[in-house]
Amino acid sequence: MNQHYANTPLLSLDTVAAVSPPLAHYSSTAVRELWTRPGLSLRDRSVITLSVLIARNQMVALRDQMNAALDNGVTPTEVAEIITHLAFYAGWGNALAAVSVTKPVFEARGISREQLPSVEVDSLPIDDAAEAKRASSVADNFGTTAPGVAQFTTDVVFRNLWLRPGLAPRDRSLVTVCALVANGQTGQITYHLNRAMDNGLTQSEASEALTQLAFYAGWPNVFSALPVVKDVFKKRNER
Amino acid sequence: MNQHYANTPLLSLDTVAAVSPPLAHYSSTAVRELWTRPGLSLRDRSVITLSVLIARNQMVALRDQMNAALDNGVTPTEVAEIITHLAFYAGWGNALAAVSVTKPVFEARGISREQLPSVEVDSLPIDDAAEAKRASSVADNFGTTAPGVAQFTTDVVFRNLWLRPGLAPRDRSLVTVCALVANGQTGQITYHLNRAMDNGLTQSEASEALTQLAFYAGWPNVFSALPVVKDVFKKRNER
Amino acid sequence: MNQHYANTPLLSLDTVAAVSPPLAHYSSTAVRELWTRPGLSLRDRSVITLSVLIARNQMVALRDQMNAALDNGVTPTEVAEIITHLAFYAGWGNALAAVSVTKPVFEARGISREQLPSVEVDSLPIDDAAEAKRASSVADNFGTTAPGVAQFTTDVVFRNLWLRPGLAPRDRSLVTVCALVANGQTGQITYHLNRAMDNGLTQSEASEALTQLAFYAGWPNVFSALPVVKDVFKKRNER
Repeated sequence: MNQHYANTPLLSLDTVAAVSPPLAHYSSTAVRELWTRPGLSLRDRSVITLSVLIARNQMVALRDQMNAALDNGVTPTEVAEIITHLAFYAGWGNALAAVSVTKPVFEARGISREQLPSVEVDSLPIDDAAEAKRASSVADNFGTTAPGVAQFTTDVVFRNLWLRPGLAPRDRSLVTVCALVANGQTGQITYHLNRAMDNGLTQSEASEALTQLAFYAGWPNVFSALPVVKDVFKKRNER
Repeated sequence: MNQHYANTPLLSLDTVAAVSPPLAHYSSTAVRELWTRPGLSLRDRSVITLSVLIARNQMVALRDQMNAALDNGVTPTEVAEIITHLAFYAGWGNALAAVSVTKPVFEARGISREQLPSVEVDSLPIDDAAEAKRASSVADNFGTTAPGVAQFTTDVVFRNLWLRPGLAPRDRSLVTVCALVANGQTGQITYHLNRAMDNGLTQSEASEALTQLAFYAGWPNVFSALPVVKDVFKKRNER
Repeated sequence: MNQHYANTPLLSLDTVAAVSPPLAHYSSTAVRELWTRPGLSLRDRSVITLSVLIARNQMVALRDQMNAALDNGVTPTEVAEIITHLAFYAGWGNALAAVSVTKPVFEARGISREQLPSVEVDSLPIDDAAEAKRASSVADNFGTTAPGVAQFTTDVVFRNLWLRPGLAPRDRSLVTVCALVANGQTGQITYHLNRAMDNGLTQSEASEALTQLAFYAGWPNVFSALPVVKDVFKKRNER
């Protein structure tokens, strides 16, 4: 194990300053301020940041953020589950690229197979009524257009992936919402943000997640998401 | 020729399992099931998968999928034409990145210049009426806003690229639709999916293409595309 | 300094032709014609192309285009400011990836720290009325939903980043619009294209920028942007 190596940032502030002194400056002021804001734990900020980088296939920044995430308390099991979840919510190629970055990080930190999730696990309980409603909505809308999609969505995504215990449903939802914002898929934020909040993400955490997303997914993606998020908050507060 | 080298996957299941056992498991169950489903040939599944990876600049997964595509019957000429087509439909940088991945694969398999498309070719016949309609629609809408775009669209894209015989129009359309879904460009799916079906893609093939796209472009992109695809199918079935 | 090395293209036409002769052909005909069109300087075309490649994380093509940009008169200070600007408008990971590509290019060309922008600079004058209007619009709309985003948008983005003198406001706006088009974020083009034109970008330059964007951001992104651009031009011409 060579933890020192694993933690040496590929992109130190000195490296950044050799190309752009102002970027290094913002990294050590605004970005540092971001990470120390109240409202979200360092661990949650790492979950958000990993999700963005994997969902957008940004491998250069991922190695440093992977080490930061493990330092911040994201467990190896959670990392493995986040990558797996994003195979479905961002694309198989994104997950494989994340594997190629994560493998040497795990090796350098001496993370062993026992720290990774098993294939066979005891599934979390499913909310049968909610799942039946979701499945019949998809079947009614798209069962004829794309029966294969409808089938995998039920059998693999909602009746298997989402029930894996290695990543809490609240975190799984947070990863999903971050992937949607990071890739500009505003049309699906309403469903998944509501699901996230049903799974325990608070409104103030969701709000602060947008601040973290502004820096890592870029301002435009966050401004595209804001009207949708505002509307979800409003409707939930009116209940 | 060193086919063994070329076919050694960069990302074996063992590599994937070293980071995420469940991702390796889904790769050997759900993804394997996907590739063996009826409704699309292995060759068509490879055309779709290459299109997604190139359109989204996912180089880590591309080398393995490039070897799989050649094994599945996509010819070197078709690979060259797919990359060229996506220069226009995804961006020049995507095509150049694909070149950087494909060149060593071609070399390792001993693919020679004679197996690649010539620059000068006998163009496929053009449907003059349909092309005149398309060109005048673009000219009326955007000829003043962006005359350069209108000119290159006609002269290079529709009167040259689309008429190259090295990739059948049905396949060229399939590549285009996959690029649109993979990058969330739902606004242009209606035109190109209709064109694909006019060019011979069947409704059941288009439906099954969405299943392949779910895994490689990610679930959210497919769910964004589904209402548009459903509407295209409905209108064509009402004819 | 080893300028020869720095200018050796990674992806020569011969390399491209080894995979796709037609792509090499289009590169030496249509793309060459593009770069020599009137309506935009070579320098502006490089600003647009760098912006697209950084905003879309396309590292393979970036090294060659970075050398081309420096040859075409984009200064090292401007490169540093473009990368910094896109940290905010595309995401921190995009900027860090651009740093990793640009650092060896700067080193090979012997570009020294004195040629890069300082952290502390004399800010450009701010239009207090316009900025107050923008800030209150964001505060009214999203101040409760995402107070952190609203705060950083005002304090860091509009009252600091945009006032840095190393990149003219017209160029900063051009970079922003290119990033929006390149990532399909059409909802924010109206604001930033108007700002670009207020900052001195002419209608004919904006029109020709779309031609450059067609090749580097891909045809679909430009066709998604065209109706928005057309509407901005129309409303400004009616004033």
